[in-house]
Amino acid sequence: MIESDESKLKIGTALLKKGFAKMQKGGVVMDVTNSEQAGIAEDSGAVAVMALERVPADIRADGGVARMADPAVIQEIMDSVNIPVMAKVRIGHFAEAYALESLGVDMIDESEVLTPADPFYHVDKRKFKVPFVCGCRNLGEAVRRIWEGAAMIRTKGEAGTGNIIEAIRHQRMVQGMIKKVGDMDNSELHKLAKEYSESYINSIKTITGETVNDDTLIFEEYTYKVVKNGIYKILDDIKRVHQRLPVVNFAAGGIATPSDAAIMMLLGSDGVFVGSGIFKSNNPKERAKAIVEAVANYNDPEIIAKVSKNLGDAMPGLEIEKIPQGELFQERGW
Amino acid sequence: MIESDESKLKIGTALLKKGFAKMQKGGVVMDVTNSEQAGIAEDSGAVAVMALERVPADIRADGGVARMADPAVIQEIMDSVNIPVMAKVRIGHFAEAYALESLGVDMIDESEVLTPADPFYHVDKRKFKVPFVCGCRNLGEAVRRIWEGAAMIRTKGEAGTGNIIEAIRHQRMVQGMIKKVGDMDNSELHKLAKEYSESYINSIKTITGETVNDDTLIFEEYTYKVVKNGIYKILDDIKRVHQRLPVVNFAAGGIATPSDAAIMMLLGSDGVFVGSGIFKSNNPKERAKAIVEAVANYNDPEIIAKVSKNLGDAMPGLEIEKIPQGELFQERGW
Repeated sequence: MIESDESKLKIGTALLKKGFAKMQKGGVVMDVTNSEQAGIAEDSGAVAVMALERVPADIRADGGVARMADPAVIQEIMDSVNIPVMAKVRIGHFAEAYALESLGVDMIDESEVLTPADPFYHVDKRKFKVPFVCGCRNLGEAVRRIWEGAAMIRTKGEAGTGNIIEAIRHQRMVQGMIKKVGDMDNSELHKLAKEYSESYINSIKTITGETVNDDTLIFEEYTYKVVKNGIYKILDDIKRVHQRLPVVNFAAGGIATPSDAAIMMLLGSDGVFVGSGIFKSNNPKERAKAIVEAVANYNDPEIIAKVSKNLGDAMPGLEIEKIPQGELFQERGW
Repeated sequence: MIESDESKLKIGTALLKKGFAKMQKGGVVMDVTNSEQAGIAEDSGAVAVMALERVPADIRADGGVARMADPAVIQEIMDSVNIPVMAKVRIGHFAEAYALESLGVDMIDESEVLTPADPFYHVDKRKFKVPFVCGCRNLGEAVRRIWEGAAMIRTKGEAGTGNIIEAIRHQRMVQGMIKKVGDMDNSELHKLAKEYSESYINSIKTITGETVNDDTLIFEEYTYKVVKNGIYKILDDIKRVHQRLPVVNFAAGGIATPSDAAIMMLLGSDGVFVGSGIFKSNNPKERAKAIVEAVANYNDPEIIAKVSKNLGDAMPGLEIEKIPQGELFQERGW
């Protein structure tokens, strides 16, 4: 059933959802497409697996529309491991999300790696008992997703490339802007909340009767105020209480080596997602273990050097400049 | 551990790092991919080897993402020769650099031949005990890298082409600008320092929340002043004391023949790096020795003529104009 009674079930509160996300801290979540890969991930020390039909590098190579995985595949993976299982839905596809929730997955990734479903709205994640993780390129995207109820944030990076540059770009942009928020006075914070909510609202505003006529907009002043106040509150929390996002903040999108995982942790990530990096390398078992070790010991270069030895070839990478216009996953969502 | 206490270790001061670089003066550093090649380089009289998985010509041909070499490959080379061993990291990938430092390499090349990792920052090389070498196209890039702590500068040239034109372009641009600096008065020097630091700062400035709004820039006035003063000091040193860069200045990127090595020395280089030029030629042993001879006797055309005889085919070269847009290594970094 779609409606739930949180007070009865005692699950699915924002606190519990964020709590689940926190339990993944310092860990590695690995993309897996079957129970054999899930077993390798579990044995290597992954804190969770992301169940999907194809890893991002294959989705990119195949083209076409990428959708939620077959629930039978997800179920098979859930039955085969004892660690949490996450799965992806298309941006805004809340029916896929309800289906996955009913299946009992531990977390849903509303992911730009799949083909977006809704041109106006992301999933209203507050309506779910299951926690969500969402990608972001900057603080604006992060707080909009948190406002919608995301319990975990990750960088978008550029999935399926094995190229770390976009994940570093996004983590530096989020961290840099958090520092800046810390130095803002109230009027500057209001201005930023306005900017962040307008860029949210602009996407909704385009649902118009006649797009040329502003007075036919279905968008209401009321919605704008709610969004703006919510985003102001999150920014104020970041400034006063956390000096960091109020949810766990992972790195994703291009991590292919132990050093890649380590640099993302050194840049302030709480953990990492590895998508294609493990099962598109030529020695997944060893590489999976090495990346788990690297995240656990990111501050110890000797361990990073040691676990990097004799791993065989990393996944073949893609230069960002070589990706045709309109094919960057990170540009999906807003 | 990443934090080091320089005063205790008595290694890693700027002076010692520059001193190591100076010891390479008048010498040839050769790219090698295994211990057999390293042995050939050592026997030929190379002052050091650069350990890597693929020479630049192969990286260019293969495409994709090029990363730090397997530390096991680097270790094997370190164990096989008695001359210093250098290795490459991606631009801005300080986790790769910490791993190589812990391995005990003698110098790190933060190299545009690998795929850049950070879109905003180069490695802060002052934080390391190991000395760094960095590439440059002009005096601005050179002083920005020196400001960041580089102990050695080399031209970028265009690696993997066997084409000397870009190395000559870059060395002439650096030397030409150094002459110009010598003739500048204080206000002109200030203007140049401003220009050089602004082009540094512009890359960092793009770390914004929402890229459209300039007033959300995290960049602080403070950073700009620090960079500008540092760069002014380096330019002033060049003018007053050295009439040359305050660190050793090598040539790299396209050297394929003894004459190529000699012309770079005649243009004021302190030594040369040979990447693909030796092991992509058809007689590496003889060519390696000939290039070492040419650098040691760059001012003696008879020796250059003699060592150039019967060397067999040089590496096949590439015309710069034939390289597709966006594929010039020299355009990486700023």
